[in-house]
Amino acid sequence: MKETTAIIAAHGPDREGLVAAITQWIFDHRGNILHLDQHVDPVAEEFFIRVEWDLKHCNIPFGEIPGRWETDLGQPLELAGSVTVSGRRPRVALFVSKLGHCFWDLLARCEAGEWGVDVPLIIGNHDVFAETARQRGYSFCVLPVAPETKADQEQRSLELLQEHQIDLVVFARYMQIVTDTLIVPYRDRIINIHHSFLPAFAGARPYHRAYERGVKVIGATAHYVTEDLDEGPIIAQDTVPVSHRDTVEDMIRKGRDLEKVVLARAVNFHLNHQVIVHGNRTVVFG
Amino acid sequence: MKETTAIIAAHGPDREGLVAAITQWIFDHRGNILHLDQHVDPVAEEFFIRVEWDLKHCNIPFGEIPGRWETDLGQPLELAGSVTVSGRRPRVALFVSKLGHCFWDLLARCEAGEWGVDVPLIIGNHDVFAETARQRGYSFCVLPVAPETKADQEQRSLELLQEHQIDLVVFARYMQIVTDTLIVPYRDRIINIHHSFLPAFAGARPYHRAYERGVKVIGATAHYVTEDLDEGPIIAQDTVPVSHRDTVEDMIRKGRDLEKVVLARAVNFHLNHQVIVHGNRTVVFG
Amino acid sequence: MKETTAIIAAHGPDREGLVAAITQWIFDHRGNILHLDQHVDPVAEEFFIRVEWDLKHCNIPFGEIPGRWETDLGQPLELAGSVTVSGRRPRVALFVSKLGHCFWDLLARCEAGEWGVDVPLIIGNHDVFAETARQRGYSFCVLPVAPETKADQEQRSLELLQEHQIDLVVFARYMQIVTDTLIVPYRDRIINIHHSFLPAFAGARPYHRAYERGVKVIGATAHYVTEDLDEGPIIAQDTVPVSHRDTVEDMIRKGRDLEKVVLARAVNFHLNHQVIVHGNRTVVFG
Amino acid sequence: MKETTAIIAAHGPDREGLVAAITQWIFDHRGNILHLDQHVDPVAEEFFIRVEWDLKHCNIPFGEIPGRWETDLGQPLELAGSVTVSGRRPRVALFVSKLGHCFWDLLARCEAGEWGVDVPLIIGNHDVFAETARQRGYSFCVLPVAPETKADQEQRSLELLQEHQIDLVVFARYMQIVTDTLIVPYRDRIINIHHSFLPAFAGARPYHRAYERGVKVIGATAHYVTEDLDEGPIIAQDTVPVSHRDTVEDMIRKGRDLEKVVLARAVNFHLNHQVIVHGNRTVVFG
Repeated sequence: MKETTAIIAAHGPDREGLVAAITQWIFDHRGNILHLDQHVDPVAEEFFIRVEWDLKHCNIPFGEIPGRWETDLGQPLELAGSVTVSGRRPRVALFVSKLGHCFWDLLARCEAGEWGVDVPLIIGNHDVFAETARQRGYSFCVLPVAPETKADQEQRSLELLQEHQIDLVVFARYMQIVTDTLIVPYRDRIINIHHSFLPAFAGARPYHRAYERGVKVIGATAHYVTEDLDEGPIIAQDTVPVSHRDTVEDMIRKGRDLEKVVLARAVNFHLNHQVIVHGNRTVVFG
Repeated sequence: MKETTAIIAAHGPDREGLVAAITQWIFDHRGNILHLDQHVDPVAEEFFIRVEWDLKHCNIPFGEIPGRWETDLGQPLELAGSVTVSGRRPRVALFVSKLGHCFWDLLARCEAGEWGVDVPLIIGNHDVFAETARQRGYSFCVLPVAPETKADQEQRSLELLQEHQIDLVVFARYMQIVTDTLIVPYRDRIINIHHSFLPAFAGARPYHRAYERGVKVIGATAHYVTEDLDEGPIIAQDTVPVSHRDTVEDMIRKGRDLEKVVLARAVNFHLNHQVIVHGNRTVVFG
Repeated sequence: MKETTAIIAAHGPDREGLVAAITQWIFDHRGNILHLDQHVDPVAEEFFIRVEWDLKHCNIPFGEIPGRWETDLGQPLELAGSVTVSGRRPRVALFVSKLGHCFWDLLARCEAGEWGVDVPLIIGNHDVFAETARQRGYSFCVLPVAPETKADQEQRSLELLQEHQIDLVVFARYMQIVTDTLIVPYRDRIINIHHSFLPAFAGARPYHRAYERGVKVIGATAHYVTEDLDEGPIIAQDTVPVSHRDTVEDMIRKGRDLEKVVLARAVNFHLNHQVIVHGNRTVVFG
Repeated sequence: MKETTAIIAAHGPDREGLVAAITQWIFDHRGNILHLDQHVDPVAEEFFIRVEWDLKHCNIPFGEIPGRWETDLGQPLELAGSVTVSGRRPRVALFVSKLGHCFWDLLARCEAGEWGVDVPLIIGNHDVFAETARQRGYSFCVLPVAPETKADQEQRSLELLQEHQIDLVVFARYMQIVTDTLIVPYRDRIINIHHSFLPAFAGARPYHRAYERGVKVIGATAHYVTEDLDEGPIIAQDTVPVSHRDTVEDMIRKGRDLEKVVLARAVNFHLNHQVIVHGNRTVVFG
């Protein structure tokens, strides 16, 4: 987010006058709209809005904006959502397993300042990247997962997330199913990358199955994590052509590039408050 | 456009309160916003908006809407643009030369009802498609172009466009440079397809030059026609991979598919009032 | 195919010396190789080859080439496949139902000479396009499909295909499941277009299901028809991005363009003898 | 390259019997062809071939293969090119300036074993990445470039490349024009990434110019470095859509991902001996 701006991302049942009410409220507080995107889902009759406005001449203390939104508009108009005021750097935690391409790619982006975030916590169920990450100054917790310790491991992960005041969790090819322990407190705040164009090849070994089926494109899907594996709301998706020349190993290699780009795209959308989840679908304001 | 809806597509210098003023005006006339898209160009400090709203409960006669817009908002807020009220089918003229792929593709789309338009006029500088088009019920005027008759031919074309009350002109690989005679009265209403990803390979024989340069992608660009050949505001653009195996003829074949799709995409954007031109650039609300 | 050329498209168990044997045989008959593509599937240990060569100085009668191939190479080396000598225009039959976009697009390509084929037969299970197609000079047979007449309808279709000496059948959104009656005599010679990126959304109403799942890309798949619906060997596949703005109708509109292009791409590959089927996968020499 | 294989990549004037001669020669030495790709440029009448074969049963010492190729086939058939026998890990040098995304991405790929190469040398004209790279174990030489020292700097660079027996040089957004001093000894062995779809926006600040022109796609191009800036033979190229919402900064961000992927794709092609240069064009065997 740019300095001294605020972003509303909200949704609720469609009714007449919603945009007028919201934009009038911003105008009354001497805000200048930088960007407004609105959508009405004609099937669900649901209204979605994202507004970014300039706070330079704002006539109320910034800290009061979220509360005012709730009482002035959110509650009366039945709009669920959030108002974010610039200032605080989002805090991101990464979960990783034994494949490093998405993990190192995300860290390189964070280090290069692509998103203005901090990464105070990394959790790995294996230790393969622990030492290198620590050398680069990261806090890397190894929390192995085994059937009998899974519940404890999730509980411990949650505590770490809360201790570090994490806003967003990214599964960088973490490859583990998680339960309500993590999902409920971090609903719509855990992003996973699946290495296929869902709903095709949900589950294990998608490249192997893509090879066997003889497809001519492979894909990657970034989605919010829900209770149902690979069934969460899709944020970003892309594909790349393959041919008979591509072995499973070639598909894995080409897929890595796709996974990195699609995951980063989803993280970028999330951090800019461009994603609104409704049911099992997302509105992603471009 | 859907029945009983109106669309504003307008732009002007950015200032505070524009969205609030426009949406309040719609609300005051008992309109329900179906779709609002807004953009501020931070470099040009220009404001762009497209709003589509439901007229079902509108409290003024539909015919008065464009006039009211001008006096209530357009003039006071210095917004240039148009308000279109559903009801009238747009009238499209096609210009064609000797290559038929875009031409027949557009006719097939019109016949299939893809856009809800009428095609009362086709102008060809050659007669190769005249007979077939007439058999299919079209009015096809053959107006050959030669250096000494060019001015007359354009004047005659303009008269035909005006007689037939044409709203949009599409150059379906017409391949002729036109002058102010046509461009001024149809500013931002003539769409051309160029068979390269502009600005690369502007001018003649782009596939031959792409082949010689050894590029690995070819492209197509749909743009509004201006005085400067291939320099007009770009509406849509896309590319497709090629390889050393592709001869110029292969590129032409692959390019045909791209040209058809890109041109149709641009026509679709225009007909839905999704395109706003500012300087030499376009805002295309998606 | 170009004039006076021949194409081998063949496959068999991999062994040493196959390319040397084939290219030596062509050299011995004074052929000049224009294009050779070879592939070894390392998993199946299967060898695939496509060779196109110039017959200008060929020292045997063209008519003897396919027979010589069989006795000299095909049988001794256990290679299955075909040798095609230029000269005869392929004969294509189209099957169509009530959606015309692929159908008219294919006819426009055939009429424009894109492939050098004849279309002596069109079969529709509905009559919506019969009159227009006949006016354009095509033989259009209406063969309605009902559960109790399905077997007869397929038998009649097969007779028509054989009477017209059809080489390739294209299902232009024909949307009917067919049985061995048609599949066995036309194994690997019936191309279908499915309006999703298979294996996702096999079966009915893929765009509706894609919308409900909230995917961010939609796709199209051209494949050979087999007994298992939507499970045949894939020839070509492509995708296009969609967003929350796209209704099911928008997806259908965008999908139409994709279906046309992907189907035409597959037909083009087939007609150029670029496709070799092995098991449920294809080698498509580019 | 896989163990105990050899790859020929060669080209020369087309003539009858070339494939037969080459494949017979491999067969005579008891090689089994794993992969053969051949191309005849019909305009230039030039023959191109890439063959990869298994040396397991090879009946001559591996070290003699390149010499035998020259005397048996290269010279008699006028074929220019190389034979590479597996065994030696290619040695890659990176040149970098002040933008790190391609640089770190390439190092991450090398470290992850994506290509089986060593990176014994990094040269930077600035020192921004020197310390971090050295901490990670790389030899990083800072060789600043100024007009008056440019000739010396190139000479010193060349010495370092030769000392370290570098096979391939990659300019990871190095952004410097180089002269014959480097180009001649490393002809077709220096890969540059340009941040536009060439030939559009050659030269400086392509994203700014793309923004001003209002294009709807941006691109990246990997090419061999020649005397003419941005005019070298293109190896790989790709594009990504942009819209009016994208500022120059957004284009730069989206472009970074494209540059990384396109550059890595070109490096991969080169390292697998899939690229053959002829004139100013490349054959890239897929």
